[in-house]
Parts: sequence; C-alpha cells; structure tokens
Amino acid sequence: MVHHSIDEATGNEANITTPPPSYNPSEAPLMYKVGYPPQRNFAREFTDTLKETFFHDNPLQQYKDQSGPTKFMMWLQFLFPVLEWGRTYNFSKFKGDLIAGLTIASLCIPQDIGYSKLANLDPQYGLYSSFIPPLVYAAMGSSRDIAIGPVAVVSLLLGSLLQNEVDSNKNKEEYLRLAFTATFFAGITQAALGFLRLGFLIEFLSHAAIVGFMGGAAITIALQQLKYVLGIRDFTKKTDIVSVMESVWGSVHHGWNWQTMVIGVAFLIFLLFAKYIGKKNKKLFWVPAIAPITSVILATFFVYITRADKQGVQIVNHIKKGINPSSAHKIYFTGPFVAKGFKIGVVCGLIGLTEAVAIGRTFATLKDYQLDGNKEMVALGTMNVVGSMTSCYIATGSFSRSAVNFMAGCQTSVSNVVMSAVVLLTLLVITPLFKYTPNAILGSIIISAVIGLVDYEAAILIWKVDKMDFIACMGAFFGVIFASVEIGLLIAVSISFAKILLQVTRPRTVLLGNLPGTTIYRNTYQYPDARHVPGVVIVRVDSAIYFSNSNYVRERILRWLTDEEDKAKEMGLPRINFLIVEMSPVIDIDTSGIHALEDLYKSLQKKEIQLILSNPGSIVIEKLRASKLTEHIGSNSIFLTVADAVRFCSSKSLQEP
Amino acid sequence: MVHHSIDEATGNEANITTPPPSYNPSEAPLMYKVGYPPQRNFAREFTDTLKETFFHDNPLQQYKDQSGPTKFMMWLQFLFPVLEWGRTYNFSKFKGDLIAGLTIASLCIPQDIGYSKLANLDPQYGLYSSFIPPLVYAAMGSSRDIAIGPVAVVSLLLGSLLQNEVDSNKNKEEYLRLAFTATFFAGITQAALGFLRLGFLIEFLSHAAIVGFMGGAAITIALQQLKYVLGIRDFTKKTDIVSVMESVWGSVHHGWNWQTMVIGVAFLIFLLFAKYIGKKNKKLFWVPAIAPITSVILATFFVYITRADKQGVQIVNHIKKGINPSSAHKIYFTGPFVAKGFKIGVVCGLIGLTEAVAIGRTFATLKDYQLDGNKEMVALGTMNVVGSMTSCYIATGSFSRSAVNFMAGCQTSVSNVVMSAVVLLTLLVITPLFKYTPNAILGSIIISAVIGLVDYEAAILIWKVDKMDFIACMGAFFGVIFASVEIGLLIAVSISFAKILLQVTRPRTVLLGNLPGTTIYRNTYQYPDARHVPGVVIVRVDSAIYFSNSNYVRERILRWLTDEEDKAKEMGLPRINFLIVEMSPVIDIDTSGIHALEDLYKSLQKKEIQLILSNPGSIVIEKLRASKLTEHIGSNSIFLTVADAVRFCSSKSLQEP
Repeated sequence: MVHHSIDEATGNEANITTPPPSYNPSEAPLMYKVGYPPQRNFAREFTDTLKETFFHDNPLQQYKDQSGPTKFMMWLQFLFPVLEWGRTYNFSKFKGDLIAGLTIASLCIPQDIGYSKLANLDPQYGLYSSFIPPLVYAAMGSSRDIAIGPVAVVSLLLGSLLQNEVDSNKNKEEYLRLAFTATFFAGITQAALGFLRLGFLIEFLSHAAIVGFMGGAAITIALQQLKYVLGIRDFTKKTDIVSVMESVWGSVHHGWNWQTMVIGVAFLIFLLFAKYIGKKNKKLFWVPAIAPITSVILATFFVYITRADKQGVQIVNHIKKGINPSSAHKIYFTGPFVAKGFKIGVVCGLIGLTEAVAIGRTFATLKDYQLDGNKEMVALGTMNVVGSMTSCYIATGSFSRSAVNFMAGCQTSVSNVVMSAVVLLTLLVITPLFKYTPNAILGSIIISAVIGLVDYEAAILIWKVDKMDFIACMGAFFGVIFASVEIGLLIAVSISFAKILLQVTRPRTVLLGNLPGTTIYRNTYQYPDARHVPGVVIVRVDSAIYFSNSNYVRERILRWLTDEEDKAKEMGLPRINFLIVEMSPVIDIDTSGIHALEDLYKSLQKKEIQLILSNPGSIVIEKLRASKLTEHIGSNSIFLTVADAVRFCSSKSLQEP
Repeated sequence: MVHHSIDEATGNEANITTPPPSYNPSEAPLMYKVGYPPQRNFAREFTDTLKETFFHDNPLQQYKDQSGPTKFMMWLQFLFPVLEWGRTYNFSKFKGDLIAGLTIASLCIPQDIGYSKLANLDPQYGLYSSFIPPLVYAAMGSSRDIAIGPVAVVSLLLGSLLQNEVDSNKNKEEYLRLAFTATFFAGITQAALGFLRLGFLIEFLSHAAIVGFMGGAAITIALQQLKYVLGIRDFTKKTDIVSVMESVWGSVHHGWNWQTMVIGVAFLIFLLFAKYIGKKNKKLFWVPAIAPITSVILATFFVYITRADKQGVQIVNHIKKGINPSSAHKIYFTGPFVAKGFKIGVVCGLIGLTEAVAIGRTFATLKDYQLDGNKEMVALGTMNVVGSMTSCYIATGSFSRSAVNFMAGCQTSVSNVVMSAVVLLTLLVITPLFKYTPNAILGSIIISAVIGLVDYEAAILIWKVDKMDFIACMGAFFGVIFASVEIGLLIAVSISFAKILLQVTRPRTVLLGNLPGTTIYRNTYQYPDARHVPGVVIVRVDSAIYFSNSNYVRERILRWLTDEEDKAKEMGLPRINFLIVEMSPVIDIDTSGIHALEDLYKSLQKKEIQLILSNPGSIVIEKLRASKLTEHIGSNSIFLTVADAVRFCSSKSLQEP
C-alpha cells in the first residue's frame, strides 16, 4: 500500500557518513533489532493515503508560502500554461512552429475528410474538429509536441458505437446530434477524471492490450477503405473482417470500378514509397508529410480534366463552406439519447485520453520535460466540451501527426494554432476545390496513415518479455478484427484486469539458500550454488499478504516445509526445527494476512517447529504489533536479517543436542 | 507472478553446508554477480503458471506411479473420503459422533423451522434441508467438524432475492419452484468452481467485508424476528432498519400482543442466559446447545394447556408430515425464470461457499488437518444439486452449530448422519407436536443464535490493524442494515476490489540508508539511524512493476531524486551522481514496466546520473535481458546487493575528483 512514503520523506534526516566499513557479523551479532516506525493516528494515515493516491506529484508544492494575488496568478498559469511560456516566446521559436504547423496542416486536411467518413459524418465536421479544439488545447495544454485533431481509431469507434444506436443514413440529424452529445460527455468525462485526479484509472488499460487494440483497429480501418479504393457502392456497415471480405468479393464482378482502382492503387503505392523514403532518411521526413496533400491535388486535378467522375469514380462532391456553426442547441440534455450519448462518450473519451496521454508522455520523455497527466486531461476535456458546442466531434492527439510535428521541429503548441489557421482558410476559401477529389485518394491516404499503428515490433517484444501480456495483446487484436471494435476493447480491458487479479492471488514464494562465504541469502533457483542450512527452511514471500492471497501463502509455505522435510528424511539429514520467513518483500499485510500468519504459527507449533520472521517492513511490524501477534511469536524470534536469524537457529540447535 | 515456484522446487538441489562463516566484503568485493535463471520456453512457462494458479496444492501428487485400478480406487476415495476414513471408523469414534449429532439435531430443528420463515418458505422445507444434504456431505465432504443445514444469512439473502422476483404470498408455487431452481444453480456454481479449481475466486471477498456483512445480516435478521416476538400481524417485507422500525412502532398501539411478548421475551432472556453460562464455562457448552429445544417443548406445552393461541398468540400450526418429496420436476429449465434462478443461485451459492469454506478452514487448523477447498466446493455443490431435487433449499455449513458440534466432541461427519436421522424421525413422527409451538419462541431462538454473528471483537481488531479494511467492514455493515442485503453485499465486494486495484496502482517506494557499522541498507523511516551515502540516492521499489503502476513508479523515483538533490544543494553536499534502485521486492515486471525503466534511464542520462540496479529477481533479470535493457544500462551496473553497488559508486567517485 501507499501510506508512509510521505512520512518517510520527512522522517528521513540526512545524516551523512563516509561509505560503510566492512562488516563482521560474529563481532557484532545483533547490533540492530527490527525497528518500529512512529505511531500515526487514523486521520494522519488516511490523509497520507489519499495524498499519495491522488497528489503523489504534489502539484500544490509551488503554492506554499505565496501571497494571495501571486497564488491566483500561479493558479491561472497552472490552468493556462500559455501565460507561462508565452512570455518567453520569440521569433526563432515561431519559425519552428510555423514550419511544423504548415506540415501537419497539409497532413491533417485530407485525413480529416477521410476520418469523418469513418465516423459516418460529412467531411466538413472533420475539418471543424481541426479548427476549434487545437486552439483551446494551445491555451490549456502543457505538451509541446502533440498534434490535436480527429484520429482514425476514435473516429471508427465513435462511428460504430453511434451506428448501433441510430442509422446515419436514415435519420442523419439525430445521428449528428447524438455525435455532439457523445463528444460533450467525452469532454466532461476527460475533464472530470483530470480534475478529480483520477487520471491513474486509464493506467488500467495495459500497454500490451493497447498495442493489440490499435493494431486491430488499424487493420479494420484499412479494410474499410477498400470500399473507396475499389470503388464499391453497396458496402457492409459491419466492421469485422469476415463480412467486409464478403462484400468485397461479392461485388468483384460488377461492383468494382477499374478507373477508381487505378487512381487508388497508384497513389497508395506512391504514398507508401514516400513513407519508406521518410523511414530510410530521417532528414526527408517532409516527403511523407507533404505526399498526401500533393496526391490530393494531383488526383483532384486529374479527375477534373478527365471528368473521371462520369466513369463512376466517386468524388467528395460538396463540402459545406464556412466556419463551425454553433451546435450547443443540438446536444441532447433530456430524453433517451442522453444515456446513450453518455455511454458512448465515456468509452470514446477514455480511448482518446489513453492515446493523447501516451503521446504526451512519449515526447515529454524525448525532450525531457515533465507532463502532469491530470492537467492534460482537463485541457483535453475542456477542448472537447467546447468542440461539442461548435460542431466538432471528439478530437485528441494523433500519433502520426504528432510525430511529424516533432520531426518538423515544433517548439510549442503554437504549431497547433498555425495548423488551425490553415484549416480555417480551407473552410473559408478552398473547400469548393475539393469537389473533384476522388474518395479513392482519401482511402489510400488513410490506409498509408493507419498502417503505422500496426506495431508488430512492439508485439514481438511483448512476446519475448511476457507471454501473458502477449495473450492480452492478441486477444484485443483478433477481437477487433473478427468481432468488432467494442468487443476488442472489452477483451483488452477484461484481460488487463484478470492479469491484475491473478497477480495478487498467486504471489511467488521462493526457497532461500546461503551464498557460500557470505551472509547473503538468495533464491536457490536463480543462484544454484546457494546452499541450504541444515535443520532450517528459509522461505521468502514475494508480495504483500492480503485477503486475496493469505490462504494461498499459508498453504504454499507449509508445502515448501513438507517438501523439505521429505527431502531431509530421504537424505537422512537432521530434522527441520526452524522455519524462517523472509519478509523484506512483504510490504503490507491486512487482517486476513495476520490470521494466515497466526494459523501458520499454530500448525508449526503442533509440528514443534519454531516460526521466525526476518526483516518485516515498517507497516507490517506496526500491524503485527497492533494485532498482538508479535507477542505470540515472541519478539525475540523476529530478526533484522536472514543471516541473524540463521545464526540464532544454529546457536539454538547447538544448545539442544 | 506465479510461474517459477515449481521450477524452484525442482531446481533447488539440497547442497548442505555448515552455517555460513562471517563475511568481510572488502576481502571479497564481488564474489557473485546477479544470476540468470535457466531459460524456459513458452509452453513450459505457461503450464507452470496454470499449474501454480489452479493446482498449487498439487492434488495429483499421490497418483504418481500407481497402477490403473489403484488409481481408480484412489480417485474414488478422493471423491468420497468416507471410503478412506470409513475403514478406520470404530465405536469410540461413533460415541463422540452420536453425542455431537444429537446435540446439533436438538439445535437445528427449531432453527430450521425459523430459518425457512426467513426464506419465506413453509417450515418443513427447513427440516427437509437438514435431512438430505447432510447425508450427501457426510459421504463427499472432507471436513470433520462442519454441521450442514440451512443458515440464517443465506436464508435471508435467498428470501429477499426471491421476493424481488416473485411474491411469496400471491403465487406460492412459483416462488417455491424458483427457490428450487436457485438452489439447483447454487449447487452447480459451487461444484463448477471446485471442479474447475476456481476456488480462489471466493478469496476476493475480504475478511473485513465478510465480518461487516455478517454483522449487518445478523442484526437485520434479529430485527425481522420482532415480528414474532412482539406478535405483529402486518409486518413490512422490507429488511432495512428504517422501514422495519416504522412497522414496529406503527403497530405499537394495536398490533402488539402482550401474551406473545411475555412468552417471547421470557424465553429470549432464558436463552441468552444459557448462552452466557456456556461462554463462562466451556464444560457447560451443552446448556446453550439444548436450551432451544427445551424452551420449544416448554413453550409448546404451555400454549397447549393455556390455549394462548386463542388470545392471539401466533403458533406454527401445521407442519407437513413425511419425508422430502421429489422436486426435480419443479426446477425451471426453460422460460424467463431460468435466468433469474441462475442469478440468485450464483449469489447465494457464493455466500454459502464463503461461509462453509471459512468454517472448514477454522476447524481444520484447530485439529491440524489439511482441507482441499476445491474438493469441499464439489461436495457442497453436489449436496445442493441433490437437495434441489428433493425439496431442499440452499444448505451450507452453520457457524453456531459447527462450533457446538466441535465442542460436543464430534470425530467425523457421521455426526451429520446422526443429526439427519433425528430430523428424519421428526419429519415422520413428531411434526404434529409442533402445532402449538408459538412463533415467538422461534423468533427468540433465532435472535439468540444470530447475535453471535455480530463479531465486534473482530471489528475492533480490524480497526487497529488496517483502517482501510475497517471502512470496507463498516460499508458492508451499514449497507446491509440501512439499504438491503444485496446492497450490503455489493458494497462489500466493490470495496474489496477497489482495495486490490488501489494497492497495485500505488506501490510504496522508500529511501534506503546504511546502518552504521554494517553492510545492511534499510528504510530510513523505519530505521532513523540509517545514514545516507553522499552522492548516492538509494530507492527501493516495494512491488512488481506493471502497466498499472509503471508510470507512477517512474515519476515517484524521479521525485525522490529531486527531493534529495534539493536537500543536497541546501546543505552544500556533493551532487548526486548515482541512483541505485534496490529491486529485491520487484518480483515481476511487464512490458510497460520495462518501458518505465527505459524512460527513467533516459531522463537520468540527461541529468548525468548513473542508474544502478541492485538484486533483480529471476523473472525480472530474465525479462530485462529479453528486452535488451541490460545492454542499455550495462550489465556492469547491476549488482547483487546494495552494499556492492555502493562500494562501486564510492570507488568510482574517488577516481573522478
């Protein structure tokens, strides 16, 4: 558990000394007894726990001993980091931001149009979501590298969840309103989590699960694009690979349009080649960055002159001109759709959050600046709430665009402002030019964009490091591909939880042996030359002892004992007289744990074996004392180190021949 | 995590040595490097995990190298322990069982009649459930002291859950059928859990939560009895204290019946006094044991001669004569009630299981014999499945009766057979005699029985030992009393889970210092005279590093570092050059954990601080190697002990002035 770290911080006076001299235990047999930490009352203990759980990063530190107005200013700066870095902002920084901003703008415009299709929304809503939210984030966010806007996975998730409730073709308006409602509640959820310092909740989605989920989602998205790249008109609304493949092959003879395919495939190859160049030579990162917009321009121009749309090449046609209309009145605050919107919002909000926070952390580590996860969440949340009132759907940080932003040398979130300015221009002026843009090109752009999300290297590493994690990863992956995005997500979450629960029910217990010529005792499995001490069994419990594992721990220790007793019998060795439980890793114990120890003590008494505890930690010894267990076991059979305990045992067994 | 323990068992060769000599580190600076455990393939690792999770008690051990027929016999004995202990059963044992059996019979008959009322069932069903299930258990169960039959809490829970679905007054038959359905599925659940070796699932209900839940249930049950003791006719169906008190006071002027009160209160006092005597003098345990049946006889006789029932004293009236009719045909296997019956069955089954297993474990420890939880569950499950087909409702082990059984000197589960024989006789012959038994007496018997479940001593201990546990306990307690049994249960479970999740998100990290004159490094908070080593920060991470806490751990370690750096600046001490992470308690690490360490390493590099790991365990070092992290950090900065690491640091800092 957590309580203490704080006291430890205060309680530890920095007495300084030269490096320790060598230690000869026989000279100083028992210099130190196990220490009891200072007693603390309930209130103290409780507040410490809360503090460590919700404010471990101690955000209020800076506010200490400050005057009222200063406090207020600092608080404003805390909420709007722009006030802080804005003052030191200069032209050289702006140059970096300008270039980065233009690059990600060129990248985001075609992506936005495509992603809004994933969410079953008209293209302009994608652009809207790249105009307002980035501005809000630029003022409130503390990440310097993240690029804000609609992203593929969230768009897909939102789209399929909304589609379950309302049919986007039949009643468009209702669908749109529900989308805004979901966006609103997504924002509320994100802001609330951050404000209530519950950010750690998103940590319950394990890295492995996310890798699997993202990979699956990416493939699902790519498959969806076949509709555009192959020019198929009647395409399934389902996202699972089976039904998608069916509707692809089903339409092979009549549905496919060769002109579309030529455009789509040709540009897909071009884009992938550009990506490849960018990978090969980091200096040429801008090639894949500007490739999409270039291909859009080329393709549009090509269709315009050849009028290929007459040959059945589907084109974007009309994108509504002008900036975001207000949509506050469209959000459902009453009626049956509130609950649905809320549910969808929470799910999409959390996924968006996970993605954004992950990105933020990654780049923060690369440039080595601290990032307050909870603060980020407040920023992202506010951004989406504002968005939901200005015709935007859920926006978050995009992996691909953030990477480009970083490589293009962005300095601050001003690059997001530049981007949104470009998007504004697009909305005001350029949208008509997209009339002849073939959907095929958008499809290939999205395919080339999401391919990066299939992180097979990470999967391989996961396989190498932790097989259980790999199962979680694959579960999520196949869940998304073969069932649906929601199911995949569900699998990911449940496997993550199952892992946590398993880990706390079956902690490890190991047998310790002595490394010859030292007073060090180590796991006899890891250190094969560690040797047993005759008549003594030394077991280390590698976890806190809680209700969820106390019985297991008790039974397991007894099993170690019986195993050793059998071995001793076989080899005609002296009988076991002592059981030493090394408790260094036992960081906490609860009432069930205490009972388990008591039961262990009783059954050992029946066998005339003495129970000895070695190095119980501060919390544990505190609780052992509180429960009077120390008196049962006898405080003279609790030692600071295994070495001391063993010395005690051998001296005792010498006394009684 | 779990994998390994098994290998460790096999891998640990018992090389024996004399107690270790004293150790002088300066002589032997680095005798041992951190050991790498033998590599294992996925299949091996996976099977080990499964084995340790589900078969940690290694139940198949005994079947090794046995011939086919013997195997079968052993398997039969495993399923029916009676075949094992039956052969060594003798008259002296039977004497003990006979007395114990008669005692618990005298106790259970009135209780059964009362408890069946709690479940809104006719009295005979309580008796039925004390006839068949004990017989089944006697053959299959492995606990020698548990007394089987209906119990108060489960009866109440079943009653209130069933009442939510069907009104027991309006459509009696449907209610009864649903009760049998629930019982059937309760049995299936219990047997399945045991058979699939998922017994550990019930460990997720923490001891504290159970104490609170039981206490609350006991008080709720006692309050329900006021209806009988005060002779109130129209009584609320709700169980929360508020509505119960309302209907008690609401009926104060007209509803109460003074004759009933006289009987009820008088005998309640008598019973409590008997209990008191039993507590005072353990030899007189039989006084409270036979008190109930005595008072039933007295009260019945009294009512019979005075015909008090004419004065409005409610009596049991008719109890159906004869043994259990078959009820297999009454169980719902189709229709809407299957799902409901299943849900109710699972809940009640789990609670029954928790109670029975707890009892079994308690007495197994007292008499020091092993009890296989999963095997017990199979026995209890089968017992309830059979019960559901012979007009019984959910039976399990009763705290109070088992204690009496134990004190009366039962030897084997034959005492249950004796009891069920007496119940059989009752059903065949004596039931008519209960005609004039006043309900009041049953009420007072139940009150005196359940009062024992309010375990305030345990609550006090919990308060002393673990405040968080205490909150869980109180949550469950008040949940049951003020809301309902289900709500209380829900609170209990959710708080238990919340505790687990909290414990894995916020592990403890502590600062280590050197105990002067030794090579021991300990928590500077627990050991105030532990001293810092200049230029070195030593942090111990007290938990496995998983996705759920990896970011927290990383940030926390960095915070320790900055705190120490500030301190060093203030006191004008040498700058920090080394960060030693003591990893002894870090029993496992997953991919997220690896990433966290990598990030930590990177940010330390930026600060020109060297990251040093001390004593990573077998699993951890394996994974560090698999992820190539050892190469990053450099295997020469991974040490076996903190002492070695510190010696390395000081030698290095001497080299570079």
